[in-house]
Amino acid sequence: MSKTIYILNGPNLNLLGKREPEIYGTDTLMDVEVACTQVGAEFGLTVKQLQSNHEGQLVEWVHEARTEAAGIIINPAAYSHTSVAILDALHMFEGPVLEVHISNIHKRETFRHHSYVSARAEGVIAGFGVNGYALAMRQMATLLT
Amino acid sequence: MSKTIYILNGPNLNLLGKREPEIYGTDTLMDVEVACTQVGAEFGLTVKQLQSNHEGQLVEWVHEARTEAAGIIINPAAYSHTSVAILDALHMFEGPVLEVHISNIHKRETFRHHSYVSARAEGVIAGFGVNGYALAMRQMATLLT
Amino acid sequence: MSKTIYILNGPNLNLLGKREPEIYGTDTLMDVEVACTQVGAEFGLTVKQLQSNHEGQLVEWVHEARTEAAGIIINPAAYSHTSVAILDALHMFEGPVLEVHISNIHKRETFRHHSYVSARAEGVIAGFGVNGYALAMRQMATLLT
Amino acid sequence: MSKTIYILNGPNLNLLGKREPEIYGTDTLMDVEVACTQVGAEFGLTVKQLQSNHEGQLVEWVHEARTEAAGIIINPAAYSHTSVAILDALHMFEGPVLEVHISNIHKRETFRHHSYVSARAEGVIAGFGVNGYALAMRQMATLLT
Amino acid sequence: MSKTIYILNGPNLNLLGKREPEIYGTDTLMDVEVACTQVGAEFGLTVKQLQSNHEGQLVEWVHEARTEAAGIIINPAAYSHTSVAILDALHMFEGPVLEVHISNIHKRETFRHHSYVSARAEGVIAGFGVNGYALAMRQMATLLT
Amino acid sequence: MSKTIYILNGPNLNLLGKREPEIYGTDTLMDVEVACTQVGAEFGLTVKQLQSNHEGQLVEWVHEARTEAAGIIINPAAYSHTSVAILDALHMFEGPVLEVHISNIHKRETFRHHSYVSARAEGVIAGFGVNGYALAMRQMATLLT
Amino acid sequence: MSKTIYILNGPNLNLLGKREPEIYGTDTLMDVEVACTQVGAEFGLTVKQLQSNHEGQLVEWVHEARTEAAGIIINPAAYSHTSVAILDALHMFEGPVLEVHISNIHKRETFRHHSYVSARAEGVIAGFGVNGYALAMRQMATLLT
Amino acid sequence: MSKTIYILNGPNLNLLGKREPEIYGTDTLMDVEVACTQVGAEFGLTVKQLQSNHEGQLVEWVHEARTEAAGIIINPAAYSHTSVAILDALHMFEGPVLEVHISNIHKRETFRHHSYVSARAEGVIAGFGVNGYALAMRQMATLLT
Amino acid sequence: MSKTIYILNGPNLNLLGKREPEIYGTDTLMDVEVACTQVGAEFGLTVKQLQSNHEGQLVEWVHEARTEAAGIIINPAAYSHTSVAILDALHMFEGPVLEVHISNIHKRETFRHHSYVSARAEGVIAGFGVNGYALAMRQMATLLT
Amino acid sequence: MSKTIYILNGPNLNLLGKREPEIYGTDTLMDVEVACTQVGAEFGLTVKQLQSNHEGQLVEWVHEARTEAAGIIINPAAYSHTSVAILDALHMFEGPVLEVHISNIHKRETFRHHSYVSARAEGVIAGFGVNGYALAMRQMATLLT
Amino acid sequence: MSKTIYILNGPNLNLLGKREPEIYGTDTLMDVEVACTQVGAEFGLTVKQLQSNHEGQLVEWVHEARTEAAGIIINPAAYSHTSVAILDALHMFEGPVLEVHISNIHKRETFRHHSYVSARAEGVIAGFGVNGYALAMRQMATLLT
Amino acid sequence: MSKTIYILNGPNLNLLGKREPEIYGTDTLMDVEVACTQVGAEFGLTVKQLQSNHEGQLVEWVHEARTEAAGIIINPAAYSHTSVAILDALHMFEGPVLEVHISNIHKRETFRHHSYVSARAEGVIAGFGVNGYALAMRQMATLLT
Repeated sequence: MSKTIYILNGPNLNLLGKREPEIYGTDTLMDVEVACTQVGAEFGLTVKQLQSNHEGQLVEWVHEARTEAAGIIINPAAYSHTSVAILDALHMFEGPVLEVHISNIHKRETFRHHSYVSARAEGVIAGFGVNGYALAMRQMATLLT
Repeated sequence: MSKTIYILNGPNLNLLGKREPEIYGTDTLMDVEVACTQVGAEFGLTVKQLQSNHEGQLVEWVHEARTEAAGIIINPAAYSHTSVAILDALHMFEGPVLEVHISNIHKRETFRHHSYVSARAEGVIAGFGVNGYALAMRQMATLLT
Repeated sequence: MSKTIYILNGPNLNLLGKREPEIYGTDTLMDVEVACTQVGAEFGLTVKQLQSNHEGQLVEWVHEARTEAAGIIINPAAYSHTSVAILDALHMFEGPVLEVHISNIHKRETFRHHSYVSARAEGVIAGFGVNGYALAMRQMATLLT
Repeated sequence: MSKTIYILNGPNLNLLGKREPEIYGTDTLMDVEVACTQVGAEFGLTVKQLQSNHEGQLVEWVHEARTEAAGIIINPAAYSHTSVAILDALHMFEGPVLEVHISNIHKRETFRHHSYVSARAEGVIAGFGVNGYALAMRQMATLLT
Repeated sequence: MSKTIYILNGPNLNLLGKREPEIYGTDTLMDVEVACTQVGAEFGLTVKQLQSNHEGQLVEWVHEARTEAAGIIINPAAYSHTSVAILDALHMFEGPVLEVHISNIHKRETFRHHSYVSARAEGVIAGFGVNGYALAMRQMATLLT
Repeated sequence: MSKTIYILNGPNLNLLGKREPEIYGTDTLMDVEVACTQVGAEFGLTVKQLQSNHEGQLVEWVHEARTEAAGIIINPAAYSHTSVAILDALHMFEGPVLEVHISNIHKRETFRHHSYVSARAEGVIAGFGVNGYALAMRQMATLLT
Repeated sequence: MSKTIYILNGPNLNLLGKREPEIYGTDTLMDVEVACTQVGAEFGLTVKQLQSNHEGQLVEWVHEARTEAAGIIINPAAYSHTSVAILDALHMFEGPVLEVHISNIHKRETFRHHSYVSARAEGVIAGFGVNGYALAMRQMATLLT
Repeated sequence: MSKTIYILNGPNLNLLGKREPEIYGTDTLMDVEVACTQVGAEFGLTVKQLQSNHEGQLVEWVHEARTEAAGIIINPAAYSHTSVAILDALHMFEGPVLEVHISNIHKRETFRHHSYVSARAEGVIAGFGVNGYALAMRQMATLLT
Repeated sequence: MSKTIYILNGPNLNLLGKREPEIYGTDTLMDVEVACTQVGAEFGLTVKQLQSNHEGQLVEWVHEARTEAAGIIINPAAYSHTSVAILDALHMFEGPVLEVHISNIHKRETFRHHSYVSARAEGVIAGFGVNGYALAMRQMATLLT
Repeated sequence: MSKTIYILNGPNLNLLGKREPEIYGTDTLMDVEVACTQVGAEFGLTVKQLQSNHEGQLVEWVHEARTEAAGIIINPAAYSHTSVAILDALHMFEGPVLEVHISNIHKRETFRHHSYVSARAEGVIAGFGVNGYALAMRQMATLLT
Repeated sequence: MSKTIYILNGPNLNLLGKREPEIYGTDTLMDVEVACTQVGAEFGLTVKQLQSNHEGQLVEWVHEARTEAAGIIINPAAYSHTSVAILDALHMFEGPVLEVHISNIHKRETFRHHSYVSARAEGVIAGFGVNGYALAMRQMATLLT
Repeated sequence: MSKTIYILNGPNLNLLGKREPEIYGTDTLMDVEVACTQVGAEFGLTVKQLQSNHEGQLVEWVHEARTEAAGIIINPAAYSHTSVAILDALHMFEGPVLEVHISNIHKRETFRHHSYVSARAEGVIAGFGVNGYALAMRQMATLLT
């Protein structure tokens, strides 16, 4: 039976592909989902992608993942830098967590250099564009087998 | 006529008793409510317990408390450290406010040592486990009489 | 055809006029809307005023403004100091953004001296009371013509 | 009898309109005076505009304002960030003080984010261009009536 | 056989009830002892209350408690913020330690926000007035049974 | 009836005149007492000079001064920089407090630049040598009449 | 032949006695001069008192003092906290320098706790009101004999 | 003609697989080379892997890469945190640079959270174990086509 | 036609050669002018040397230089560390700016390590004694041809 | 005639050997004294070992050592990090001072990394267990001959 | 069979005895080797002393020590303060590590107060001159038996 | 007999003229050597120019200079900001040391504002392009005669 990976996306990512393309490129979240599903198929993993602009909603999807998912790939976007609540939720999840940032946050404003989520994630990938999600899927496959 | 005390719980506390029991123990929010109701009964206080993972919802319950409650016991959880909005809401509440943390936040990561809410609360109790709520109820009774 | 200006208000501002009048005065958001509409009428601008205690909701109204509004006047209130998500949303908006604070945040607690939103706003007005909104409307008219 | 408002301008503002137009625009102090006089006329206020590159001179004009002016609008320019002397002088003035910055100082170098004068001013307006003076005049009218 | 709880009080608390009543109230240490003895009686605990203005004396009472007491309730007062010696002594005590502050230290000067003792205490209670001692006694009973 | 002034001296001052004379000079505490007594005689003030190397003892002499002294002149020496306990004791004293440092602490190591006691003292005199005590006596006379 | 002491006063002190009397009292600079002249007469010292709101003027009076004065008593007021130029000028003066602050600067805003001039002054006196000048005159007499 | 990718490894990585396996796993650099060669073959990329414990040697290999390589994958290890020289060398390289850390440096000591190299790298991958190199190879292929 | 170079000197430099010779040597500003004139003659440059202890005067000479000078050599002395006004004035000057410090400011007190002017100057020379001016003249010649 | 070395031990060291043996081992102060006496015998040095939990007592023993001891070996324990008074006392002692810490304080909490006493001690030895005292005795012998 | 101890010396120590004798004395590394060999002979330990000015070479000698040495005595000199690479190498060594500094680094510039190596070393000895090596040898003997 | 000046160049300077020409220009180290030799010839100085990317090599050239050179001109490049080892080596050199930076390091990233070497150098020249070396040669001639 195939395992499910939750791909959680934080605030403003619903506009991915439409916003600041010089930083984030032109791919949309739908493109991300397609790419991740392809990689998943290769390794027997199913993908469930979700996006919310609400910190509380992201917390609740992490709660849901506790029983529904084998792993979490999360791009917390702006909440990376400000949300202890998401960090605490992830501490309650027992499978692997991988953190994705589309841009290289270490080249941007200082306040983007720190992510609360990194203190919980097994790994972090930043600046690999939307391709980072697919690479995280590959790593997830490695971690789950 | 009995006075009502709002017991507000922040993010992830819906999983209390199921999460990281070595830190938070095995009691659930329902146990908290029972214990507080018992103490309240002793002093003629009614309890209304609420939990949300949404900062905005907590803000709105504090607004509601302005007309519905005589006092607030709040465990803001992760929002203790990041929410100015809840602090501002509490500044608009006129009765006593008591802040509860189940674990001793001063023994954990540095970013948990500071709570915005403490600047408004009459008192703070941390590291007394879920028992902290019941003790806060006793203090509330003292403050309201 | 008249252009629309979004006036976005952050947490606790729904109680404007009822809370801490020594800091914020007695005018309500409805008074703000009336005043802004009057100024707008003078310059051919329509006003749409919105308020939310939810960070995610404010993010989404900024998204909506991308196609519906010519400019944004925002009082992010407590979220000024803690929300990278709203800043990121505003970075995706192409028209002018003006930031309003009713009180002079520079005379209050240190954590209120910094606003993430200021890094995006064309201008900031603080401590002009509710009159600040109307003055921002005048400036918006200047910027849009 | 009409009341007088002192409009005090700090160092380098004598070159306003000739310096770094991409930051400050092309209007001169004379344009500022004209605009403020117009607004003042609407509300029965007279304007006296002064500019100096000398900190001590600005201090002395504030002293003079104690008996000669009903309010002060001040753009301390570079002295905003370094002058305790001007702050102390303003503490001795009893009427309202409004602080104007032509550019949005919060988007510039870090050392421009702090203004000593803000600790005394009723309100601060930044990034509204030279229009900020006229809007401050409107606010002054509100405060004085 | 009843267990003994040491209640240790730091500098200036000998004047409790006589000093700054707007911060500390009018109850004296004797009132504290009476209240704690009452709670103790309920749970089979004996109380031994001690006060000293000398850091070294407090250190030695903690040493004594190693063989004489089942738990320690300590209000280190000013030494909370400056004494590593008391912290080190408490590290050598094996039973539970509860820390009490009469006022809410988080609302006072910044240097009062940090307590060395909190790094060792099971729990901390601040701002509950002298009632904090009695509530700590209740918690001590819970911890020891 | 003559009023009494307590002159309290902190650690190592018992060796005044014998230690590091290039910093502190060759006068002893006895010379200080003589000089202060002379000034006191001029203004109807009696002097009681005390010295201790024990923080707790200094705290207790401040307590004693509450009923026995009209004013306190204190040279807390090393405890200036580390003792919150003495500060708290002085907060309980109602008369004037003057702080004396023999050397100019602002020219020495950084940790000597801050004195907790200064937050309570009416005035501070540093670097006037032992003469600082006598000048403080003169000021005490001014304050008490 | 009598020696001359320069008494230099920084910005806003020309209004001494008229400004913020709850902080600075009601005595004027003329009263200061009278008091200092009296003390000087006792010890064969002449007083020359000067005041300026201009940093550069104060620098130049210190230069003048190099040949005209035996000692300098300076109250740099706001320039204490911001002027390296006055510090550098004083480094070129060879006689004793005493620094006077009328209020206790250590009880006011943090930025007033540091004085550049203290790094050069033999002694500092703060919070002794205008009486501080006269006491500094006494110390000057001691230092010059 | 196939393009060459330089894989540069910093200090102590020659012992990879033998050192602290609980942090770094048991794979060796040879395993890394094999995996990267495999991925490279898929995309027409050749791999040249180099390791040195000498900062200067790493600088020189980056210089060499300017003419010999199409891209650089670098794990600067300890030099990530201390070497400006490697950063400067990379600034002179014109192709893409990807930074790999085997462990999640954000979960370790604070001094490991900052990498100078990140200011130059297109992307950073941390905590993906030795698999991170192969994933970086995939990304390199994407970037070079 | 020969170009003019303004050589601007800040506070206390009028005493150059008379003050602290162990730091600054015995040459005077006149010697500086002679040396610079000699170098200038070699390259067809005329020198105009000015000195002021007044920040405002220095600002105004920079304004004047906008039309009168081809380049500015400035030793802002103490104002290096405190004057944003001079920095702002220099931002309005379009020719090259070279900054000279006679002593090596990086070996002195920490507050002398930062110069606002360096953020604008093409180059900075420190610790070359008065010879630094002449070397700056040579560099100015290079820059202007 | 044999010279005497004072071995001073700070707070909690009376329990050495009984407290936290995983950090401090099982040897007692008596074992320390025996070991130091043995080393001393080899070099003609007598040992006087003292322990106190009182900062003031330690200060006074340092005073006593001025006439009674040729050198001081001190383990200030917790007072290392908080006592300026002991530092000041040691500044008055003219012989060599060696500082001993049983554990390696640099591997423990950050507040243990700084010792005031180190600013006076000739040498510091940390993490050598109780053996550190005997090695310090050997060094003392070297320094005194 | 005798065990080998590696004595590793960092940059500039090849000039020991020739450089800054007022800080480091006149003994050379050869004297150090002789003294350590003598102590080693007493306890059945052989010494291998090495010195390099190259960080990378020191890293490699630590690698070598993994199979060749029972313990390491290291004086990392300047690299103490800047080398994470040496720290990482030492983390891979399984025997005891002792850190030696000839001078008392805590009495010198602030940047010398922190040593990365201390986070790994069992013990640290500073300010005991070259004698520190021999004392470290004695401690090594204790640790290895 | 002519004196020799060592011109030492740090990492990446071997590529001078080929790297980032918009920052460093197009001259190479060979051009620098030619220019310095010319200036040297004028003053009877010989030049020996060396470049290395290895910190240890630079340390050793400074050692060599102790007997072979009369002065050192050093551009430590990246090692300016990170190398205590080079600073320590320079402390052992007895002749004059001049520090050159091609670009104005004070206008670049914050970590480039501090140079360890500046604490030892007689003078520092930054932002004068490669011309800075020749000007330093002139100063060297002044210092050596």
